[in-house]
Amino acid sequence: MWHHIRSPFSSQSEIKHSTEQDCWIAVSSKVWDVTDFLSIHLGGPAVILKYAGGDATEAYEEIHAPGILEETLDQSKFIGNLAASIDIPQAATVPKATENVQNEEIPEPIRESVKVETTPYQKPPLFTLISAPDFTAVAEQALTPKAWAFYSSAATDLITHRLNKALVRRIMMRPRILRNVKSVSIKRKVLGHDSSAPFFISPAAMARLAHKDGELALARGASKEGIIQCISSNASYPLGSIVGAGHKGQSFFLQLYVNSEREKTAELLRKARDLGIKAIFVTVDAPVAGKREADERLAAENVASAVSGAVAGNDKKGGGMGRLMAQYVDKELVWEDISWIKQVSGLPVVLKGVQSAADAQLAVKYGCKGIMVSNHGGRTLDGAQPSILVLLEIHQICPEVLDKLEVFVDGGFERGSDILKALALGATAVGVGRPYLYSLMYSTDGVEHLTQILKDELETAMKLCGITSIDEAHPGLLNTRDIDHLVSNGDTHPHIKWKPRSRL
Amino acid sequence: MWHHIRSPFSSQSEIKHSTEQDCWIAVSSKVWDVTDFLSIHLGGPAVILKYAGGDATEAYEEIHAPGILEETLDQSKFIGNLAASIDIPQAATVPKATENVQNEEIPEPIRESVKVETTPYQKPPLFTLISAPDFTAVAEQALTPKAWAFYSSAATDLITHRLNKALVRRIMMRPRILRNVKSVSIKRKVLGHDSSAPFFISPAAMARLAHKDGELALARGASKEGIIQCISSNASYPLGSIVGAGHKGQSFFLQLYVNSEREKTAELLRKARDLGIKAIFVTVDAPVAGKREADERLAAENVASAVSGAVAGNDKKGGGMGRLMAQYVDKELVWEDISWIKQVSGLPVVLKGVQSAADAQLAVKYGCKGIMVSNHGGRTLDGAQPSILVLLEIHQICPEVLDKLEVFVDGGFERGSDILKALALGATAVGVGRPYLYSLMYSTDGVEHLTQILKDELETAMKLCGITSIDEAHPGLLNTRDIDHLVSNGDTHPHIKWKPRSRL
Amino acid sequence: MWHHIRSPFSSQSEIKHSTEQDCWIAVSSKVWDVTDFLSIHLGGPAVILKYAGGDATEAYEEIHAPGILEETLDQSKFIGNLAASIDIPQAATVPKATENVQNEEIPEPIRESVKVETTPYQKPPLFTLISAPDFTAVAEQALTPKAWAFYSSAATDLITHRLNKALVRRIMMRPRILRNVKSVSIKRKVLGHDSSAPFFISPAAMARLAHKDGELALARGASKEGIIQCISSNASYPLGSIVGAGHKGQSFFLQLYVNSEREKTAELLRKARDLGIKAIFVTVDAPVAGKREADERLAAENVASAVSGAVAGNDKKGGGMGRLMAQYVDKELVWEDISWIKQVSGLPVVLKGVQSAADAQLAVKYGCKGIMVSNHGGRTLDGAQPSILVLLEIHQICPEVLDKLEVFVDGGFERGSDILKALALGATAVGVGRPYLYSLMYSTDGVEHLTQILKDELETAMKLCGITSIDEAHPGLLNTRDIDHLVSNGDTHPHIKWKPRSRL
Amino acid sequence: MWHHIRSPFSSQSEIKHSTEQDCWIAVSSKVWDVTDFLSIHLGGPAVILKYAGGDATEAYEEIHAPGILEETLDQSKFIGNLAASIDIPQAATVPKATENVQNEEIPEPIRESVKVETTPYQKPPLFTLISAPDFTAVAEQALTPKAWAFYSSAATDLITHRLNKALVRRIMMRPRILRNVKSVSIKRKVLGHDSSAPFFISPAAMARLAHKDGELALARGASKEGIIQCISSNASYPLGSIVGAGHKGQSFFLQLYVNSEREKTAELLRKARDLGIKAIFVTVDAPVAGKREADERLAAENVASAVSGAVAGNDKKGGGMGRLMAQYVDKELVWEDISWIKQVSGLPVVLKGVQSAADAQLAVKYGCKGIMVSNHGGRTLDGAQPSILVLLEIHQICPEVLDKLEVFVDGGFERGSDILKALALGATAVGVGRPYLYSLMYSTDGVEHLTQILKDELETAMKLCGITSIDEAHPGLLNTRDIDHLVSNGDTHPHIKWKPRSRL
Repeated sequence: MWHHIRSPFSSQSEIKHSTEQDCWIAVSSKVWDVTDFLSIHLGGPAVILKYAGGDATEAYEEIHAPGILEETLDQSKFIGNLAASIDIPQAATVPKATENVQNEEIPEPIRESVKVETTPYQKPPLFTLISAPDFTAVAEQALTPKAWAFYSSAATDLITHRLNKALVRRIMMRPRILRNVKSVSIKRKVLGHDSSAPFFISPAAMARLAHKDGELALARGASKEGIIQCISSNASYPLGSIVGAGHKGQSFFLQLYVNSEREKTAELLRKARDLGIKAIFVTVDAPVAGKREADERLAAENVASAVSGAVAGNDKKGGGMGRLMAQYVDKELVWEDISWIKQVSGLPVVLKGVQSAADAQLAVKYGCKGIMVSNHGGRTLDGAQPSILVLLEIHQICPEVLDKLEVFVDGGFERGSDILKALALGATAVGVGRPYLYSLMYSTDGVEHLTQILKDELETAMKLCGITSIDEAHPGLLNTRDIDHLVSNGDTHPHIKWKPRSRL
Repeated sequence: MWHHIRSPFSSQSEIKHSTEQDCWIAVSSKVWDVTDFLSIHLGGPAVILKYAGGDATEAYEEIHAPGILEETLDQSKFIGNLAASIDIPQAATVPKATENVQNEEIPEPIRESVKVETTPYQKPPLFTLISAPDFTAVAEQALTPKAWAFYSSAATDLITHRLNKALVRRIMMRPRILRNVKSVSIKRKVLGHDSSAPFFISPAAMARLAHKDGELALARGASKEGIIQCISSNASYPLGSIVGAGHKGQSFFLQLYVNSEREKTAELLRKARDLGIKAIFVTVDAPVAGKREADERLAAENVASAVSGAVAGNDKKGGGMGRLMAQYVDKELVWEDISWIKQVSGLPVVLKGVQSAADAQLAVKYGCKGIMVSNHGGRTLDGAQPSILVLLEIHQICPEVLDKLEVFVDGGFERGSDILKALALGATAVGVGRPYLYSLMYSTDGVEHLTQILKDELETAMKLCGITSIDEAHPGLLNTRDIDHLVSNGDTHPHIKWKPRSRL
Repeated sequence: MWHHIRSPFSSQSEIKHSTEQDCWIAVSSKVWDVTDFLSIHLGGPAVILKYAGGDATEAYEEIHAPGILEETLDQSKFIGNLAASIDIPQAATVPKATENVQNEEIPEPIRESVKVETTPYQKPPLFTLISAPDFTAVAEQALTPKAWAFYSSAATDLITHRLNKALVRRIMMRPRILRNVKSVSIKRKVLGHDSSAPFFISPAAMARLAHKDGELALARGASKEGIIQCISSNASYPLGSIVGAGHKGQSFFLQLYVNSEREKTAELLRKARDLGIKAIFVTVDAPVAGKREADERLAAENVASAVSGAVAGNDKKGGGMGRLMAQYVDKELVWEDISWIKQVSGLPVVLKGVQSAADAQLAVKYGCKGIMVSNHGGRTLDGAQPSILVLLEIHQICPEVLDKLEVFVDGGFERGSDILKALALGATAVGVGRPYLYSLMYSTDGVEHLTQILKDELETAMKLCGITSIDEAHPGLLNTRDIDHLVSNGDTHPHIKWKPRSRL
Repeated sequence: MWHHIRSPFSSQSEIKHSTEQDCWIAVSSKVWDVTDFLSIHLGGPAVILKYAGGDATEAYEEIHAPGILEETLDQSKFIGNLAASIDIPQAATVPKATENVQNEEIPEPIRESVKVETTPYQKPPLFTLISAPDFTAVAEQALTPKAWAFYSSAATDLITHRLNKALVRRIMMRPRILRNVKSVSIKRKVLGHDSSAPFFISPAAMARLAHKDGELALARGASKEGIIQCISSNASYPLGSIVGAGHKGQSFFLQLYVNSEREKTAELLRKARDLGIKAIFVTVDAPVAGKREADERLAAENVASAVSGAVAGNDKKGGGMGRLMAQYVDKELVWEDISWIKQVSGLPVVLKGVQSAADAQLAVKYGCKGIMVSNHGGRTLDGAQPSILVLLEIHQICPEVLDKLEVFVDGGFERGSDILKALALGATAVGVGRPYLYSLMYSTDGVEHLTQILKDELETAMKLCGITSIDEAHPGLLNTRDIDHLVSNGDTHPHIKWKPRSRL
């Protein structure tokens, strides 16, 4: 018997190639020796060991694009085909994970593991979704628990996640009247490239969790709607496939986690350059992963049922997908590395994750073409100031930055009027993240539909404000008084004079 | 077979005159050719096409006053009477929409469409309603879902809608004691015309949705109570009928949406002048309709079941009644057009929808007799500052405006003490909108009852504040400290110096 | 047939003496002609007419003390005894309201009216109640719906009622440490009279609704605990009985509604003086009653079932007990009348209901010995600033007032620490109202128990603050920063310069 | 018949040695005469009298460590062994409290009292708990109602308890980017002693209520994790046992309630010195116990069923464990006593419970080595300013204090980022209280697991803030604007000039 889950209650002695020292898995009827690969898997070894000696097709396909395994592993690691049944005893009887097998030879625990949960939830027709929050509401029902936890979760108590949105909403608008608003223009140049709208698809990992078309559908939707996609370096599909899914000449950006093995990053940057990527968004707010508890709880449960108690007992940091995927990120990345990234890629660099005016000023000094004010959607440091406050802090402390580079912002923007507020505060464009992931439930159609909703809401908000071009957006359209008192004065505090003995 | 609903599941081949190219409908047993009318229907063609080739009486009567069809359509479009059964095959068998027909010849889908939902809800006796919120609570139960959605809905996330009321309530009062308050006077001159109270019926579209007497009942109630009604230019009844329902010499105002076909507006203005209307309230906060999602969701459902998927798929902006009715509004209306309206009508003009001190100043400059501080009840731009903040902004930036024209305000005023707060801040009168629509559930009696409640609450609040005339209301009666920090400084922000390259 | 309820469904023709022109009622087996009395009944005629021609004993006893009828009506109005069955046909068959009569001769509607509702709720033992809020929680269950509505209700939307308590709680304390707090003293002289604690029983109408012992139990409890009771002029018991229930020399205050028939007030004041009352608390915040909707709704229901539709239809102001009882209050009372009250009574006068610094200053000018900062427990003008804000306003604008007269305060004080906060802000004593009414559920024991709880809480708070005498309480013990921004600057507003043409 | 509960319904005449004048109890099969001990029991006599003449083993063991009875009572009070059945009639039939006895000779009320409630709740595996709040959630389910009430309760309305946490959370962080954060150090010297982390186990009474290992498990966990335990002077285990449970040279602090019998305190201090305790944390915020209502309610119920109504009736202050345990605390402790404590113990003194800048300054003056900003977890004076505000008040008024002594803080810190905020404001270390009590449900493993979670969260927060040593934490990492307005100016108030006649 081959396929299994590990359980303290079942004997494992008869399962072959199922240990850290000798680990085979089957994916799409092909059997691979992944013993050496275990230690370099970005997602960590535990998640592979769950399927050691068994069929990992279902779990693999949920996250990875087809072909990645072949690209990654040396051909010498290929053991054989399940169908041929040559090398692996019982291989022919490996049940496909997507079937609800009723094979009497399979003992109980196994049958349970391959049962497909039949969910009665039916997604509503796409045209009945009329706002970004509608997509969120559907996603909560329609996605798998794992996908929902991974996408929707944010750090610890969700304080920053909620403040991101709440503070944008607390900015009020001051509409002007009796202006000709028959036609409006929302086109914008972003880092010199045309976009039909002043927002773009913010990078988010593992789009395939929402739909098998994953980032390909994002590319196709962006193509049809004329907006820019910023591709995650943790995308489910290879960069080339994603770029290839769009039209010729379509503008893409690449989000970059710098790998502690720098050569791997250099390779990725060269590939990006060759594929015609327009800019590199270097993530700087996540040298380590935040603690996304919803994500980690699901992981903990998996670990509980699948790997040895000893392993779980030793790891008190949780094992969520977010944390696992962050393991390869270089924790030693510093300002001086920016020039290296520019040099290797030959592309403009935008810092994604700026959270203080001081660092916005440094970004100018180090030659960045842009900054993205972001706290990773509240997914890294819970309690970090919400994005809109950082934007106002820049206005207060170093407004000249807004004239020296392009400023992007994300975190809680899900209405056309939200986007207009950011534009009025000088943002070049706004990143929209989770809503696009959720739109993927409807593949390319969903991406288009969401884009059209946001464009329509933005145009409506502009007309009602009395402006016809996004270039006319300015702070006078806003009443920010409800949050003005929250804007930091930078390193100075009204009540605090004390300086620690040892300082930054 | 004639009456039907369109469904993707039923064949439409046998239904005649049911396409955009050849469309007849029956209303009150008369059959009309509305093919040419489709494109100019204020409510859009889709809502008519639902009944193409069938009986539209029920849907028509819910919104339109009797006789409007005859007034609007050329006699050449009259095809014949259903009863005569001459021109239209099967016309005699068209079921009346208000009957629960058990005719075996009608196929299933049709029978369902004519079923009258029997709701067990019984409105409570009028005298048990003792406040405006009571009317709202009853309306939520008693109105049809469509009427409730249309009246109660506001833009997107209802932020402005809720802030309107919440901020009025956060103003506190500072009652004075030991004054003779035996008798109080709440009479006020409004634009030179007598009113028994410093509030009036704010214009709201389609009163017939609440009661078949619609705006006629509002006129009769206003007559009995001696208050002024501001008639919506989207009223269910013709202007003449409404004015005629009141007493001789009764004061009315007319709310105006300027039509992009200016001559239609000119015609309406001349009619208003001839009917003795006292002033024109030009709506300036809605060049396009806001996105009222509750309204649009119902529309979306209707569209879903009734028109082809292709049509719905192309329209990602929703199809709520509010949006449909706004289609004819002139998006090119500018300040210079004010004088044209004054000239054509010969009437004083009040701008309805002023949302900033700067525009209040412009209103003085362009010769308006009044402004109405309003955000359309939160129905246009969600996030717009609530009305009471705009009033305070005027106090801060241009208090002289209050001496140069009359200032009206609406949005969230539903208590006598709410009205007193606006008066203390210099408002001439307060508009009360939704509560009057809801009062229509009891026709004229409801309008009177609500008016008496508001008058009584206002008088009580005045006595408890130690004043006996509304002319004595002044800012010293208020403690506005809880919202003072929210008042905008106009175009200047404490933290923001930055100016966009291209500005207004 | 005699006893009945009036109902639109039952014929009334056979009921004698049941009209406004000829009205008899039976109370405790005595029949009275109350035709003339109807128009001067403080509670209005409607409530009597409900029982016209029938037995009103139960309703009478719920509100009135025994013997008041005999004192009030001329002997000529006495018709006879029910038992004697002489003058009144069928009088012998009048069912007692407190019996669940199963007499077959009584038609259905009547039998329903005499059914005694059996409530299964059992009050918990007194000693398990350990705080004032505990009494409230029990009262909500144990009181009759009418009593609960009358006591707990406040004006319209309960904004002031809730703010009263909320803002006291938002004041924080700054405890001092390492002081000898072995024994503390909470004794205080109040208007020159000894009290064992710096709080007193605030006047509240109709204590008999909570317990048959009503104000007598309050007097007995105050006697045992050595605190002062301020008797309501709407007390259920005669003033003499209440004073007589206490010990010799016990201190009482009398709350006064000035009657529009001044001689009645003069008579009451002379009686108070003769009974040894120590001070008169003149209510000045209620020239008319506030709109207590919970109270009025119950009234509306009664009216609905009992009096003619015409009457109800004419009265759109509601008919709650609070409003009815306020009818006799003199709406023409002015500052100049204070000296008359002082003269007639020969007693010090305290103004109850001061709500602005300006009126606190006037109180000094007009020779008051004290003011009570109060908004009637939020029962008059909803939206009035909460008491604690008025106290802070006095500190800001006219702190010298605190040295010129004694300042009392009530509204939302239900913890020992709440009381300590008021003392720290200069209050001589704090009025506790509703909690004492609720304590009456346990008669005198409840009054004592509540008093002991409050004393214990106050002592504990003092010890934890590091003070041993209430004379040591001072503003430095408080952190009021959370509400400082809400304190009014009096008649001046930071944003408002505008003056109305006609001003106070 | 021996074992019983006292009930008003059962006759007590046949129970011997069950009165205040003659009281025996059995504990672990040994019978003691506790008549004299009743009056000096720290927990008061009532709790013992519940078991007078019966078996108190279960109640005793829940709170007390084994052997304490033998240590405390003179051998002359030992009556004999239950097993021997010599001196006590029916002693042999005393049912063990942990058995569900079905003995027919035991009358009904007794059998009920010995029933063991079988709770179906199963604690989840330890590794699935991934945060301090997880421990709280489990504790609410897993602890006995008495233990949960005692640990979780706080004073009266829980205002301070909730503000402690809420205000820490309202401080935002300003992360810095692009710094090398590969390795971080969280080690700190605390009063000169090494700690692996800048937090310690805050003292909390009666750890045995959570687990039989009580404070021993805390000591063992602290040993393994290298952190410091501050032992409560109300610990369940003797001081020597707790210190002995750790490793040689392990650092402990002792929290001290000064006994009104000073010699007992002197004895304890000498013992502490001899055991190698490193510092004395003198509790100064609880000269009397706060009113923890959840705790008192349970007590009230017990009292209700177990002791005579007369006793309960006389005690209207409640009888919670917290209040009972505070009875021996010296209410006369003053600043001058600090030197006595230092002298007797020869140890550095830290004041636990400083709540104002003024007292922080006095602590410097009186030679304390540290202060602990604390309000006893909101358990003493409800309404006291939350700890983080006091810390900011010190920054505002006397920042020099931070350089003159070590500042500790507790109250609501349960996340690594919470701890980092305190460090950035100059705290040497943060006390963690309730979470460690809850971690005891898993004995030593729980203590370790919680410690590792907090360390990991702190390290993650530091890396995401861009610092690698806790010495780099500084105010510039924080945005405190959301709470800055709440910081007191000390004894001065913006609106208050008034001074009471008699002042501190």
